[in-house]
Amino acid sequence: MVQKVAVIGAGPCGLSSVKACLDEGLEPTCFESSDDIGGLWRYKSQEKLVPGRTNIYQCVIINSSKEMMAFSDFPPPAELPNSMHHTEVLLYLRLYAQTFSLLQHIHLQTKVVGLRQRPDFDATGQWDVETETADGRRQTHVFDAVMVCTGHYTQPHLPLSSFPIESFKGRYFHSWEYRNAKGLEGKRVVVIGFGNCGCDIAVDISRVAERVYLSTRSGAWVVGRVGPGGLPFDTTWISRLVVTLSSLFPTWSDMLERKLNEFVDHKLYGLKPKHVFATGYNYSFPFLPPDLQAKSGYRLRLYKHVIPPTLAHPTLAVVGFIHGLGAINSMAEMQARWSTRVFKPAEDVMVKEIETETATMNQFVCSERNPLQVDVIPYTDSLAEQVGAKPNILQLLFTEPALVLQVVLGPYTSYQYRLSGPGKWAGARQAIFAQKQRIARPFRTRAVSEEPG
Amino acid sequence: MVQKVAVIGAGPCGLSSVKACLDEGLEPTCFESSDDIGGLWRYKSQEKLVPGRTNIYQCVIINSSKEMMAFSDFPPPAELPNSMHHTEVLLYLRLYAQTFSLLQHIHLQTKVVGLRQRPDFDATGQWDVETETADGRRQTHVFDAVMVCTGHYTQPHLPLSSFPIESFKGRYFHSWEYRNAKGLEGKRVVVIGFGNCGCDIAVDISRVAERVYLSTRSGAWVVGRVGPGGLPFDTTWISRLVVTLSSLFPTWSDMLERKLNEFVDHKLYGLKPKHVFATGYNYSFPFLPPDLQAKSGYRLRLYKHVIPPTLAHPTLAVVGFIHGLGAINSMAEMQARWSTRVFKPAEDVMVKEIETETATMNQFVCSERNPLQVDVIPYTDSLAEQVGAKPNILQLLFTEPALVLQVVLGPYTSYQYRLSGPGKWAGARQAIFAQKQRIARPFRTRAVSEEPG
Repeated sequence: MVQKVAVIGAGPCGLSSVKACLDEGLEPTCFESSDDIGGLWRYKSQEKLVPGRTNIYQCVIINSSKEMMAFSDFPPPAELPNSMHHTEVLLYLRLYAQTFSLLQHIHLQTKVVGLRQRPDFDATGQWDVETETADGRRQTHVFDAVMVCTGHYTQPHLPLSSFPIESFKGRYFHSWEYRNAKGLEGKRVVVIGFGNCGCDIAVDISRVAERVYLSTRSGAWVVGRVGPGGLPFDTTWISRLVVTLSSLFPTWSDMLERKLNEFVDHKLYGLKPKHVFATGYNYSFPFLPPDLQAKSGYRLRLYKHVIPPTLAHPTLAVVGFIHGLGAINSMAEMQARWSTRVFKPAEDVMVKEIETETATMNQFVCSERNPLQVDVIPYTDSLAEQVGAKPNILQLLFTEPALVLQVVLGPYTSYQYRLSGPGKWAGARQAIFAQKQRIARPFRTRAVSEEPG
Repeated sequence: MVQKVAVIGAGPCGLSSVKACLDEGLEPTCFESSDDIGGLWRYKSQEKLVPGRTNIYQCVIINSSKEMMAFSDFPPPAELPNSMHHTEVLLYLRLYAQTFSLLQHIHLQTKVVGLRQRPDFDATGQWDVETETADGRRQTHVFDAVMVCTGHYTQPHLPLSSFPIESFKGRYFHSWEYRNAKGLEGKRVVVIGFGNCGCDIAVDISRVAERVYLSTRSGAWVVGRVGPGGLPFDTTWISRLVVTLSSLFPTWSDMLERKLNEFVDHKLYGLKPKHVFATGYNYSFPFLPPDLQAKSGYRLRLYKHVIPPTLAHPTLAVVGFIHGLGAINSMAEMQARWSTRVFKPAEDVMVKEIETETATMNQFVCSERNPLQVDVIPYTDSLAEQVGAKPNILQLLFTEPALVLQVVLGPYTSYQYRLSGPGKWAGARQAIFAQKQRIARPFRTRAVSEEPG
């Protein structure tokens, strides 16, 4: 039974993982190698760069706007700007840690140097976590589960072999090492890479350099942080509606392209991309056993991007190892909430649902003489949801309005559980549309003229 | 790894369980104690009644209409009447078994007399299934999983102690023994119980008896099979819309009551019920180990009404042990589909999803330099669905139209994952409505008069 959980890293993902553990009645212990919380968002102005840790530059402003990067139960103070400077993001994280009393579970200056399944893992699912404190003292702790929250901005990708670097006489370095433009005054600088960092840094340097070149292989869409009406662009642009529409209608993507070209004509600028631009980082989990670092294509082989599927017990979760058109914070928070429920013994979760389910029935009561009663649609939907065959009403609303009328207003027939997911049946759609005819058919026992006799 | 599955019983639930196994690549072996498929729906006109088996009477017509009792990928022939006689239900089941080649997996006249976890169950999850054929030969088979499809109309509930039965000189029997009115001609008969059976049988006997009394303790709603316009009542009445509305608005239930009273004034007839009427049957699983028959309140302690939560491996499923305002067939079919996916090794299911997930992304491609890319909303929703915290758009549409506008059209903020389910946060609703204000607040750096200067 999972009780003690190790959380590795105290950045945004680590913090929300600690909170998710507390919310589920688990005991988190968070190990953070540096001397403060905040991870990526703690700007290290004076410190020496440490390999394997994140680093940001002085001018970093978060790409996602305030509301879009918020944790689900902790709206940021209204006074904070929509595009927050890294100091303000860190402030938000400190408020979060303080409000939910997370700090007492965090061990600073304690680095995880090893993570191994215990010899009796097949029976217990437990892990040995080896840590090293600043004074070099090593210790091994036993945990029932582990959440890896070490991020993916720690391993600079420096493709030197792609350039005739041996003939280059100047200074070169990865953006990971960049803090500010000091030392680049009056120089000619080329920034290679057109991602968020590359653009940010090129602009930053341009204020002091003689000339800055920004180099890109394949272009990218350029979107400012400020959208129509001066509102944060992402709040006008990342909604369930827009994302549903753009995934359904290719023309919608064209419309979005036109919208983006209103800011910058990407063709004119030679920027129209073939795909989305690279992050400029590799990833590594030096403390993880190699067999848990198997790949599926380009990806780590993780179920839901979180759990290695080969473990006898699902007691290891990688949180925040993900990238999408939106803030990582809220996605990672959901990963943490999901993981802590996967950790909990299946028996506990099931027994709790059995005990509470009767009380939540809407239509009926369960009684001694009627112990088998359920509310049909919510009950069958709950199974279909786990199978992956529940009809997606919202998506159907846009793709098949005629079908959704049948599914929502028409008789509740079971064909709707064959529209999508495992067990999808090509005939389901037609079976639904034709059900009225099959109902009517037996009434047609004789041919009747429609004209008045 | 689950491969061989025992299915106990070849009624509607057993048949769809055999099919669900085949659909998921499992090997089903179905044991049926009688000499034919169909379970409840096979009328045994000549046979001796066998304790522990179902029985129906000659005039039985199914309560659910044709389309509402259909399996999800097998619409009934259009020619069949909407209210099918038991011979027609059996015909439908035979067509189903034939179409999907189920018969070859069914062993008739083979009764399951014992079901035990194997000594190495904690490691293997396997079962010993002991069967007895008509010639008395017993055999024990090893199975990776078991689906119990024996129904719940086999154990008559005969509450004799509630009646002064010793002073009653006439004949008495449970409806389970009833076939037709033969022998009751000219008699005075009281039918005790106002459920489906009681009403059916009272009407059947009334055609030959001197007088029939129908007795009820607590009344019930009387609904005919034929609804408005002569269409099957259940097709006009069991829809996602109606069920959502009636669970949300108590006044909707009043309206339904008025509708039902248009057929029969339940108060006038003294029938207005306090709750839904009893089925008249007890349940028992004589072959199941007693520790798997624990109860939670009046119910068997089964997760999703299917799987005992205390097993080290979830390799036992009870299918069709359920009752709701709708046909059991389609609910049981979904239970079978769900069970076979629970049986499959978690590793297989996870690996398959990992391998196919990349191909189903809508917005982006996963590439060597962008291995962490996901489609944010579908991905986060898929986690939220398993947590039980995905916003229910359809329900919100009726309860909180203003909120659903924010959730669907507004910025995709994470507060919507705290509206319901585990981790529900009372402040989530307000956090969503106030997000626009928090976005606007930082712009208000000075007080500006709204009047033209």
